[in-house]
Amino acid sequence: MASTLENLSLQSKEDNIEDDVVDPWNVSSKNKTGIDYNKLIRRFGSSKIDDKLLMRIEAATKKPVHHFLKREIFFSHRDLHSILNLYEQGKPFYLYTGRGPSSSSLHIGHLVPFIFTKWLQDVFNVPLIIQLTDDEKFLWKDLKLEEAKAYECPSFYGNVLRIQKSVTFNQVKGIFGFGDSDVIGKIAFPAVQAAPCLSSTFPFIFGNEKVPCLVPCAIDQDPYFRMTRDVAPKLGYLKPALIHSSFLPSLQGADTKMSASDLNSSIYLKDTPKEIKNKINKYAFSGGRETVEMHREKGGDCNVDISYQYLKYFLESDEGLIKIEKAHTSGNMLTGELKNILIESISKIVKEHQTNRSKITDDDVKEFMTPRKLT
Amino acid sequence: MASTLENLSLQSKEDNIEDDVVDPWNVSSKNKTGIDYNKLIRRFGSSKIDDKLLMRIEAATKKPVHHFLKREIFFSHRDLHSILNLYEQGKPFYLYTGRGPSSSSLHIGHLVPFIFTKWLQDVFNVPLIIQLTDDEKFLWKDLKLEEAKAYECPSFYGNVLRIQKSVTFNQVKGIFGFGDSDVIGKIAFPAVQAAPCLSSTFPFIFGNEKVPCLVPCAIDQDPYFRMTRDVAPKLGYLKPALIHSSFLPSLQGADTKMSASDLNSSIYLKDTPKEIKNKINKYAFSGGRETVEMHREKGGDCNVDISYQYLKYFLESDEGLIKIEKAHTSGNMLTGELKNILIESISKIVKEHQTNRSKITDDDVKEFMTPRKLT
Repeated sequence: MASTLENLSLQSKEDNIEDDVVDPWNVSSKNKTGIDYNKLIRRFGSSKIDDKLLMRIEAATKKPVHHFLKREIFFSHRDLHSILNLYEQGKPFYLYTGRGPSSSSLHIGHLVPFIFTKWLQDVFNVPLIIQLTDDEKFLWKDLKLEEAKAYECPSFYGNVLRIQKSVTFNQVKGIFGFGDSDVIGKIAFPAVQAAPCLSSTFPFIFGNEKVPCLVPCAIDQDPYFRMTRDVAPKLGYLKPALIHSSFLPSLQGADTKMSASDLNSSIYLKDTPKEIKNKINKYAFSGGRETVEMHREKGGDCNVDISYQYLKYFLESDEGLIKIEKAHTSGNMLTGELKNILIESISKIVKEHQTNRSKITDDDVKEFMTPRKLT
Repeated sequence: MASTLENLSLQSKEDNIEDDVVDPWNVSSKNKTGIDYNKLIRRFGSSKIDDKLLMRIEAATKKPVHHFLKREIFFSHRDLHSILNLYEQGKPFYLYTGRGPSSSSLHIGHLVPFIFTKWLQDVFNVPLIIQLTDDEKFLWKDLKLEEAKAYECPSFYGNVLRIQKSVTFNQVKGIFGFGDSDVIGKIAFPAVQAAPCLSSTFPFIFGNEKVPCLVPCAIDQDPYFRMTRDVAPKLGYLKPALIHSSFLPSLQGADTKMSASDLNSSIYLKDTPKEIKNKINKYAFSGGRETVEMHREKGGDCNVDISYQYLKYFLESDEGLIKIEKAHTSGNMLTGELKNILIESISKIVKEHQTNRSKITDDDVKEFMTPRKLT
């Protein structure tokens, strides 16, 4: 198995030199249209989410699929068919996703996996684990370390150890590119990200039952789960299934993802309507032409236009989106108008988030952070 | 600093090839008289406990030193003078020792650091931390993993991470000899053994105060603390001080230490008087001569006689021990008589332990295992 993993990663290294870099700590592309996700699927060895799979999801859940699926924002998977088999047989599974605290506020890109995970939780009616990996941010960045709550749960550390006993340095070297001068914290960390894929990490939820796990995540996190999928069977578990999203681009263009540490590339969930308006007007990369006349004549390019790209994520109405695409491409809609539509959409979502957030009490947070039986 | 550590270990590797092997997982010697501890002091770069230091301890504590010190059973140290300076100035320090559960019962060799640590605790009147490293035994041996209690304390995992962020794979490779095919659990583990050396691991005991630490341990554990002494100043702490013991030999002879997994080499703390008697009579390596006549004429060799060696640990009376040595060396005392003295001494200690242990309730254990303020 080690050799399979190493082959995978050698292949990925070669590709990286030529174009896109996608790993848990770096995402960038040399192409103006951003990451080539089809190439990434081939490189990682995952499967494309095709129309047949979308139809199967609709049939199983008896609900229309989320627009993130229709628009290929969640575009790749591993073993999603196995999860649907379980669901159709009335057997349980659970969701696991996570977030590393990289700044004092989330940005709108961070919402993407959460919006989608909430949808999965609702349509499948299954338990959800959210892991907050402040330890990863401490090891890789200079973030201050606060209390590490997860370890309050002894079953968690037990499974971290079981995983750490099943993975060699050679393997993490192959998967993550670690070297001899990396600190031992980084080398050991992947097991922390892997542990929630084993249902025995949460005995207070699942008892002794071995319940399979589905992980919605951005595709840069795939290396962690390639490792986990290698380890899980050795510990008597099914491989975790995965469903991968693309990256919300930065305001500056599709060649990098939105980054919480770059103030001008991001719209934060605590931004005011004015800040949102200013950032989009000032920074959102435009696919429009240099002059109004040229734009009216030749039309804009939605493939590189950040406002249009963001609307693919945040404008639910399919007809609305098609209308905008046609109007911009034909030259009828100018960049300013397109930006105004985006400003309105994003402001609405951010305001809604802020309103909901203001209602959360310390007791709510405490309850969510306490290992407990789910009802 | 990395290079210092690497030099140390390269040197130790060369020595190892020629004679003694001493690391946290292996202890053996090619010499019938066992490990050459003076050589080990030079190899590890620690300091010998000399008469001057013994006198200083007696002067500071106003109590006679323990016979383990007089008989060079605790024979080596790092920075013990600094601890005595603190003590003389009325400043606090604390003790930290540990035990990995390698079998269902401790053996009498395991008592050695505990007896001595208890003595240190009594004469210096300082707090004591005992870490139970079942995680180490899980990673290196096939011991089943139970709950890992230590991680219930968030400050513990925080310091483990801080240490793991300060140590590279190159460093643990140099200190412990880890290689690319070692599992990541082993590579990361030394930080778990190191964390209790930082007083901030125990905020419920020490608050925000940076209190120095003294570690009594067998000398095979020194690599863990060489690493810790390298890391502690980077995290704003004094290097932990150390006091090292030799190894109680196995019944079969001084060339290996007593091992909990080798039934015939060990006297367990749950053995019956009959088992103790049988094991010593059957297995304890004798320094006596082949026949009674030869023994009477030439005398026995206390340097290789296991019964005599054990009495150095477990017979408190100095005069008693000298009398025995003379009688055996001169040929007056036969192996059988010497073994009977040892059987009596060990049986008494084991019985006392069993009596005390039978009085321990589950509530006592729970109290000792709970993070709490010390009174």
